[in-house]
Amino acid sequence: MRLRKRPWSQEMFELHQEILIDSEDDLKGKWKKTLNVDDLKLEIGTGRGDYWHGLAKQYPDSGVIAMEKDFTAASIALKKLTDYGNKRMIYGDAKDLESYFDKKELDAIYLNFSDPWPKKRHAKRRLTHTSKVKVYHSLLNDEGCLIMKTDNRSLFEYSLVSVASHGFQLDEVFLDFRNTSQDDPITEYEQKFMDKGQPIYRAIWRKTNVK
Amino acid sequence: MRLRKRPWSQEMFELHQEILIDSEDDLKGKWKKTLNVDDLKLEIGTGRGDYWHGLAKQYPDSGVIAMEKDFTAASIALKKLTDYGNKRMIYGDAKDLESYFDKKELDAIYLNFSDPWPKKRHAKRRLTHTSKVKVYHSLLNDEGCLIMKTDNRSLFEYSLVSVASHGFQLDEVFLDFRNTSQDDPITEYEQKFMDKGQPIYRAIWRKTNVK
Repeated sequence: MRLRKRPWSQEMFELHQEILIDSEDDLKGKWKKTLNVDDLKLEIGTGRGDYWHGLAKQYPDSGVIAMEKDFTAASIALKKLTDYGNKRMIYGDAKDLESYFDKKELDAIYLNFSDPWPKKRHAKRRLTHTSKVKVYHSLLNDEGCLIMKTDNRSLFEYSLVSVASHGFQLDEVFLDFRNTSQDDPITEYEQKFMDKGQPIYRAIWRKTNVK
Repeated sequence: MRLRKRPWSQEMFELHQEILIDSEDDLKGKWKKTLNVDDLKLEIGTGRGDYWHGLAKQYPDSGVIAMEKDFTAASIALKKLTDYGNKRMIYGDAKDLESYFDKKELDAIYLNFSDPWPKKRHAKRRLTHTSKVKVYHSLLNDEGCLIMKTDNRSLFEYSLVSVASHGFQLDEVFLDFRNTSQDDPITEYEQKFMDKGQPIYRAIWRKTNVK
C-alpha cells in the first residue's frame, strides 16, 4: 500500500504522543502492568486503523496495540482516535518485535491483509515466513493465538503450511469468512473485497510446543 | 451419491473377481509382498473409478487399491478395467479398514469428494472425523501421506482442523487446485465442478507423531 502524503501526518504524531511508544524497550515486559490489563493483543500492519479501533472496542478490557511502519498510514490511524483507553501504537517494523515485547507477553497477534510478496525471492518478507512465525511463537503465551485474515489465496495457502510447521496448530479456518461469520471488525481492504464479492480467508492458530 | 441399479453389476463382480479382495484378512500384512511393490496407495470411496484408474496409470510401480462400499459404484469402476496390473479392489466399508490393512502398511491414503455429511450430528460419518483420522494414522507408515480433494468448503474447513489435530501436519494446500496444478487424475465429480468454474480444494498432510 502506497499512500499519498498527508500534510497533517506529523501533527497527528505530536497530538497523540501519549499513546505512541517512543523507545523500543520502553514497555518491554511491563505492558500488562502499565496498561492494567490481563490480556494483550497486537495487530501487526495496522494500516489506516479501522481494525485496530474495532478490536479495541470489541475488547475494552484488553490492551490493544497497533504496529505500523508506514508514517502516513500510522498518522491516518491516529487521526481516527476518539479516545485512548486501552490503545497504544508502535510506529515501527515487525522485524524489531523482540525489542518491544518480552517472551510470552502477548495473548494474540493479528495479521490483516498483509503484503503478499508474491515473488518467491521475496518470501522472507511475508509476515508468515518461518523467521517471523518463530518470533510470534516466542512472544505469545502458552495459550496464545495467531489470527490472520487475507483476500490473497496464495498468501493464505503459504501461511497455512508455514505457520503450522513452526509450533502452531490450526484451530479454526474460514475459506469464505464473511459468508460464515460477522464477528470480527472489518478492515478498509476487507470492505473493498467484500463489495466485489471476493472471499475473505481467515485462520486462527493456537500455540503448541515446538518440535 | 445414489446410483441407479445396473443389470450387469453382479456380472462385473464375477468377471473381475481376480482383483477383488474376498475376505477381510486375506492380504493383511502381505499386500506389498503379494503385489510385489514397495509402495501401497489406497483410495477410500472410489465411486465410479476414474481416479483409481488414473492413479494406477500414474504410479505403475505402486499397488493402487480402491475401496468402495456401494455395490453399483464398485461395479461401474470394475467395468472400466482394461487391465489388472497393480490394481485391487475392496468392496467394503472404511470402518473396517483395520481388518484389511496392518499397521504402517500403507504409504498414501486418498479421499476424493467424500460425502460432506453437512449436519453436525452426522459429523462422525465424515471420512475426516477424528475416529477415522486416528485409524489412517496407524495404517500409514512413518512418512505416509493423507491426500484429500473436495469441492465442499465446509468439509474442507472441518478437515483442515480435524486432520491436523491428530498426528498429521499440513504439507501442501490448494484453495483452487485446478487453477494451480494439473498433476493429478480428475474424478467424475471434479470434472462437473470444474465445468461450473467452482474451486477444487486439495490438501496433503504428512504423518507426524501423535501427541
